Amino acid sequence: MIQRIYLLTAILVCYTGIVLSQTAFQVIPLGVKGGSDESNLSAYLVAVKGTSNYVCLDAGTIHAGLQKAIERGTLKGTATDTQKNLIKGYLISHPHLDHLAGMVITSPEDSPKPIYGLPFCLDVLKEKYFSWKSWANFGNEGEKPTLNKYRYTPLSTENEIPLDQTSMQVKAFDLSHAAPGQSTAFLLRDNKNYILYLGDTGADTIEHSQKLRQLWQQVGPLIQTKQLRAIFIEVSFPNEQPDKSLFGHLTPRLLMNELAVLDTYSGHALKGLPVVITHIKPSGDNEVKIKKQLQELNTLQVKLVYPEQGVMLEF
Amino acid sequence: MIQRIYLLTAILVCYTGIVLSQTAFQVIPLGVKGGSDESNLSAYLVAVKGTSNYVCLDAGTIHAGLQKAIERGTLKGTATDTQKNLIKGYLISHPHLDHLAGMVITSPEDSPKPIYGLPFCLDVLKEKYFSWKSWANFGNEGEKPTLNKYRYTPLSTENEIPLDQTSMQVKAFDLSHAAPGQSTAFLLRDNKNYILYLGDTGADTIEHSQKLRQLWQQVGPLIQTKQLRAIFIEVSFPNEQPDKSLFGHLTPRLLMNELAVLDTYSGHALKGLPVVITHIKPSGDNEVKIKKQLQELNTLQVKLVYPEQGVMLEF
Repeated sequence: MIQRIYLLTAILVCYTGIVLSQTAFQVIPLGVKGGSDESNLSAYLVAVKGTSNYVCLDAGTIHAGLQKAIERGTLKGTATDTQKNLIKGYLISHPHLDHLAGMVITSPEDSPKPIYGLPFCLDVLKEKYFSWKSWANFGNEGEKPTLNKYRYTPLSTENEIPLDQTSMQVKAFDLSHAAPGQSTAFLLRDNKNYILYLGDTGADTIEHSQKLRQLWQQVGPLIQTKQLRAIFIEVSFPNEQPDKSLFGHLTPRLLMNELAVLDTYSGHALKGLPVVITHIKPSGDNEVKIKKQLQELNTLQVKLVYPEQGVMLEF
Repeated sequence: MIQRIYLLTAILVCYTGIVLSQTAFQVIPLGVKGGSDESNLSAYLVAVKGTSNYVCLDAGTIHAGLQKAIERGTLKGTATDTQKNLIKGYLISHPHLDHLAGMVITSPEDSPKPIYGLPFCLDVLKEKYFSWKSWANFGNEGEKPTLNKYRYTPLSTENEIPLDQTSMQVKAFDLSHAAPGQSTAFLLRDNKNYILYLGDTGADTIEHSQKLRQLWQQVGPLIQTKQLRAIFIEVSFPNEQPDKSLFGHLTPRLLMNELAVLDTYSGHALKGLPVVITHIKPSGDNEVKIKKQLQELNTLQVKLVYPEQGVMLEF
C-alpha cells in the first residue's frame, strides 16, 4: 500500500513537472542587432510550439536571417520558400528602417499575407515605403495602383486581434520611443499562454511617460499565474550612455529599474522569468559591457537570454 | 646596329604594353545582387588605383559588405572605421530601397560626407527616408531639425562635378527605369580615364526611350580612344522573363542589343572592353542561366566580368 502511494506520488510529481516545464512557444530570431549590420537586424519568428505557423515580430532582416537558420539546421528548404510558406504575417512595432527593411526588400518574392501594426505605424509604411517612389506599392492601401500582396491590418490597444492562419491572438500597447516618437509592444496569446515583445522603447523616467508602467500593470498578473512565458525587450546602450544621447532606448540600469516596477505588479514573481535582450547596438565592446552590467544588476534574478540569429528558443 | 634596333623595338613594345595595361581604377564591390539578400545589395566602392579615397556607387549594403571585404583581406580594420575614413561620398542612382538601405542603416556611425544624385533622387531621400518618420534626418535639407551629417549635392547632366576629397569628377546621365520611373548613370573621370556605372535601367525598345542611345553616343568615342576602362551595367533577369514583367530591367538579349548600338558609336571597338554584370536577381537558377545566355550571345566579344562581394577589381 505504502509502495503504491509512493508510486502514485512519483507519477504525479513527474506529470506535474512535465506540465510546468512544457514549452508553449518557439521563437527563431532572424536578426538580433540594434543597428549597423544589415544582415542581422531585429526580426523574430514566433509560433506555437510544434507548429510551423509563424508570425514575424519586426522585420529588419528576413532573407539573410532565414539563410542563417537554414545553415544552422533550424529550418529546412530555401530562404524564399520558407518566407512564403512559414511566415503568416508581420507585426511591425514602429516604422524605423532597421525594423522593416527586410520585409520591404524581400516583398517581390513573398506570398500574400497581413501586415499588423498600430495605425501610426501602418500610415508610415504606406506613405514612406510602399509609396512607388521608394518601393513598388505591394500594400492594399496608399499610392495607386496597389498590388494588394500585403493587407494592412490595424491592431488595437483595447482588444485582442486574431493572427491569421495561426491559433494566436495579439493585443498592442503604446510605447514611447524618443517622445513624441511612438513604438509598440505586442502581447501574443495562445490558449492560456502569453509572450510579450517590446519594440524600441525608452524608460518612463527619461521619456516622461507612463507607458511602460501601464504595460507592467497589465502583464504583472500574468507573471504571477505563470502564464507569461517570456519578455523580449531592448537594451541598446551600456550604462555609460548619457541620458541626453539615449534616443529613446534602454540601458541595463534603466531596464532593471523598469523590471523592478514590473516585479511589484507581479507580486514579486519575476525570479526565473526569461527576459530576452534584444537590439544591442554592436559598436565597440557594447555587447560585452551590456551583458556584464545586466548580470551585475540582476538582483531580481530574471533569466537573461541573449538570442542568436537562426538559433531556436523555446518558452 | 640591327641588334640595337631590335633592342629599342623590344623596349618600346614593353613600355607601350605597360602603359596600355596600367590600371586606372580599383573597385571593391560591397554588394552585387539585385534583390532579396539584405547582406549583398548593390554598392560599389571606386577609387583611383593606388589610393584609398573611395566613392560608393549606390549603397544597398554597406556594413555587411565592408565586413566581407575585411574577411577576404581586401580591406583592413573594422567595418565602421573603414566606412568613416575611406568612403568620401555616396552616389545614388535612384531611390529604391535596395540601392540605399545600407547607407541609411549605417548613418548613425558614419562620418560627414556628401550624397550625390540627380535632383529627383535627392528629393526622395529627403521626403521618404531621412524624414524623421522612417529615420532621423541626417541630411542638411528636408524635415527639421536637420542633423547635417550628409550634404545633398545635386549632379548635373550638363557638366562634370568634382567628387570631394578625391581626384575624380562625375557627369550624370538620365536613365529610364520602368518609365516614368527614373534612374541615373555615372560617368566617372580621373585625368584621361573613365569608368561608367549604370543604375537599374530598362532597354530603349521596352522603355520607349532614347536614354541609352544618348548615353552610348556620348561614351562611344571614349571606347575608341581606350579611355573608358569598364562599364558596370545590370542584367536582372534571364531571357525567359516576359517583356511585360521586366519592371525596367535588362536581360542578356536586351543588354547585347544595347551593346550593339554602343559598338557602332565606338567605331566597333568594343572587343575586350570589361562589362561588369550587376544586379542579377538571385531567385532560382537565374545566375547560372544569365551567365550562360550572356556567353552565348557575346558575339561582340566584350570581357564579361562577374563581381564578387569584397573582392577587388582593377580596370
